[in-house]
Amino acid sequence: MDTPPTKKTLQIAIVGGGITGIMLAIGLTRRGVRCTIYEQAAQFGELGAGVSISRNAVRAMGLIDRSVLGAFNIVATRNKWESKKSVWFDFMDGTSQEPAARLKPLFAMVDPGVGQNAVHRARFLDELVRLLPRDVAQFNKKLDHILDDRIGSGKMLMKFKDGSVAEADAIIGCDGIKSRTRSILVGEDHPAATAMYTHKYAYRGLIPMQQAIQVLGEERAVNSHMWLGPNRHVLTFPVDHGKTLNMVAFATNDREDWPSSSKLTLPTTKAEALDDFREFGQNVKNIIQLAPDKMDRWAIFDLGNHPLSAYHKGRICLAGDAAHATSPHHGAGAGFCIEDAAFLARLIADPQVQEPAHLEVVFSAYDAHRRERTQWLVRSSRRAGNLYEWLAQGVGSNFKSMEKELAERLGYIWSYDIDNALREATKDLHRRLNVPGLPRLDSQVMPFVTNDENGVEMA
Amino acid sequence: MDTPPTKKTLQIAIVGGGITGIMLAIGLTRRGVRCTIYEQAAQFGELGAGVSISRNAVRAMGLIDRSVLGAFNIVATRNKWESKKSVWFDFMDGTSQEPAARLKPLFAMVDPGVGQNAVHRARFLDELVRLLPRDVAQFNKKLDHILDDRIGSGKMLMKFKDGSVAEADAIIGCDGIKSRTRSILVGEDHPAATAMYTHKYAYRGLIPMQQAIQVLGEERAVNSHMWLGPNRHVLTFPVDHGKTLNMVAFATNDREDWPSSSKLTLPTTKAEALDDFREFGQNVKNIIQLAPDKMDRWAIFDLGNHPLSAYHKGRICLAGDAAHATSPHHGAGAGFCIEDAAFLARLIADPQVQEPAHLEVVFSAYDAHRRERTQWLVRSSRRAGNLYEWLAQGVGSNFKSMEKELAERLGYIWSYDIDNALREATKDLHRRLNVPGLPRLDSQVMPFVTNDENGVEMA
Repeated sequence: MDTPPTKKTLQIAIVGGGITGIMLAIGLTRRGVRCTIYEQAAQFGELGAGVSISRNAVRAMGLIDRSVLGAFNIVATRNKWESKKSVWFDFMDGTSQEPAARLKPLFAMVDPGVGQNAVHRARFLDELVRLLPRDVAQFNKKLDHILDDRIGSGKMLMKFKDGSVAEADAIIGCDGIKSRTRSILVGEDHPAATAMYTHKYAYRGLIPMQQAIQVLGEERAVNSHMWLGPNRHVLTFPVDHGKTLNMVAFATNDREDWPSSSKLTLPTTKAEALDDFREFGQNVKNIIQLAPDKMDRWAIFDLGNHPLSAYHKGRICLAGDAAHATSPHHGAGAGFCIEDAAFLARLIADPQVQEPAHLEVVFSAYDAHRRERTQWLVRSSRRAGNLYEWLAQGVGSNFKSMEKELAERLGYIWSYDIDNALREATKDLHRRLNVPGLPRLDSQVMPFVTNDENGVEMA
Repeated sequence: MDTPPTKKTLQIAIVGGGITGIMLAIGLTRRGVRCTIYEQAAQFGELGAGVSISRNAVRAMGLIDRSVLGAFNIVATRNKWESKKSVWFDFMDGTSQEPAARLKPLFAMVDPGVGQNAVHRARFLDELVRLLPRDVAQFNKKLDHILDDRIGSGKMLMKFKDGSVAEADAIIGCDGIKSRTRSILVGEDHPAATAMYTHKYAYRGLIPMQQAIQVLGEERAVNSHMWLGPNRHVLTFPVDHGKTLNMVAFATNDREDWPSSSKLTLPTTKAEALDDFREFGQNVKNIIQLAPDKMDRWAIFDLGNHPLSAYHKGRICLAGDAAHATSPHHGAGAGFCIEDAAFLARLIADPQVQEPAHLEVVFSAYDAHRRERTQWLVRSSRRAGNLYEWLAQGVGSNFKSMEKELAERLGYIWSYDIDNALREATKDLHRRLNVPGLPRLDSQVMPFVTNDENGVEMA
């Protein structure tokens, strides 16, 4: 595709070519804003099999560009049965010995018209990359440090590990859970520089759907299910347009630390997984039995212990996992990354944003309107993980309470009115831009929701 | 007094000789830990007339040292009437035209056996200073920057504005709302470096009690009252052992920024205050009328917009207002500073803390056990300010709801079991100290309350 005519002279650097960075680049280029993606790898690529896309994420994609929805529709796998198209997950008692085909769900979470949308990260990324101008990305660019050349060129300078230097009017770190931009922003020895172990990990395995149907029956195999139990829970859902069942088996271990400080994924075996789930019912054991002998164990890290006090500092900004890496228990991590990208693209492209100094104002408005929701997700997702595993205080294995609380939390995630949020943020951006002399960017009125606290949140 | 025998070779630097710093120094010296206070002024001194001390603060003082309770009892002023000794505030309709003597309270907040304790900051500080060894403080030491001399002396170095340098094994910033230690820790251009305007300000005035009794009647004058109204609220309470009435008249202005970027207090007149409260009833106007013609207007700033993601970084730590400056609407700011001091004194003095590297572990345990409560206060205090002014979403001028919510929030503040919290933190400290090689200080299990979220907190 061609680059649309450039309306601004502003130049944005995007650090990291994952889903957040590519979404942001699409949003910016489609609006005529110049940007470059600096990706540390030799080519675009994403790790991790499945990503869940919910209603709020679909809306955010539409705001980035209609073409993104097209890419999404090519790769999304939904529940196979028509009657299950609106179901996010059916929740099952994973400890029951009743055969899966006869076992009734405890409850279901339903998102009308959307339900479960599993997307293969790498394939989704491939489709998204097609929407980008060819020259937008530079590879083998591992960020080393950042300099604010305020009195020289007036630009932000990035030094990369290969010794090269690039400049931009602002830098947006979309470099994921291990973000170098974040550690530069807060300082390397700061507790918020690194994500931390949540004391949950997961075994992951892909299973041919025909085999899965044999042990679970068709209804349970071709539609998404969550199998609950004490200290453990297992997700099964169709991927690859229904040809494969994706199994993710989570476990909590509060006693031990994750054995590696650099690797989030370590090799393990099916035998270990089976032993870990020995207290579960036969259905879950049957599913694990179908996984390959060699499996991966994936540590769940997040930024919940030390939430960032701001997503920006001067003309450096963080988006997606770099800002708010979350555990996956709400299936909302990628969706919130996409919301961030939609926000930043729209605010940067705003006609009143014309000078480099305005980008700092954009970032402070973005921070004021996005930080609360995204940091809430990190906390709420931890809570959800504990709900599934009967560990949540005040709920335990009371499934009525569990259903009620999950519905409330998922409702807050899914029903996000991003159009209205963007209208509010844009209004706020204009107010901030029109303060004479821009004396203290952040002392402007925060949106009511951040200035106040609704409801008693007791510790 | 004499310095008790030193049990450790550790040397702690305390930046700032306000209530937090002095409390901490008392707690440390009484436990044989060497420390030095670096105070920017030429002598000890505190601004602001009144400070409120509630049950949790009294308990924390006792943990620092019994002698602190003695100092407190010398300077505390309580409600005069025996029947009001347990009352924190009687809440009045400030818009009513009914004369104060006949007007009945809307409701009361009661803390049995404690009630309202007003303390004059400067006088309290004078009493506390007597409890310190003479040589513990150095004056005219305005912190400029900090160096971690890891490969040299192994010490932390402080450079002061006067060019002098001091060293310590760790630095604790108790330097208040405008903390230089905080801006060093997060970086000067970081949004969390500076406190921000909450869009509330207050007129303050001291009124001879005899005059106050003439306009309010004895019951309303010699005991603490809060006068509520739309967008405004007024506190009246006895200070100086009942000889003086302290009036603090708060107002909300969401439209304008605070006119000064450096001064939190600006001169104003009684005429302006009267005009600001023109919508209120005669009782409030009568009180303001008794204030001197020249008054101060005090801007309420806090750290609520950008809560710190950690209270420490390496061997630098923040305590009190430097870490969590709050608006005064819960009357709990000073109390939380004292809790911090009690925590740090006890954890640093722990027998297992022997080497400089252990202090970093102390700070991470302190952060894990204190940050949640103290940042909650900042949010909840904003909410309280809005409750008093009929601005709180879902409550407005529904006094039944207001009473219920305030009771719940104040209960959480007052009922803090600091003994138990310290036991938990000490257990956690020992666990963190005994991790082989101390690989990643912060990845240890956080207390359940921080790892999880209790109750749905919707934005």
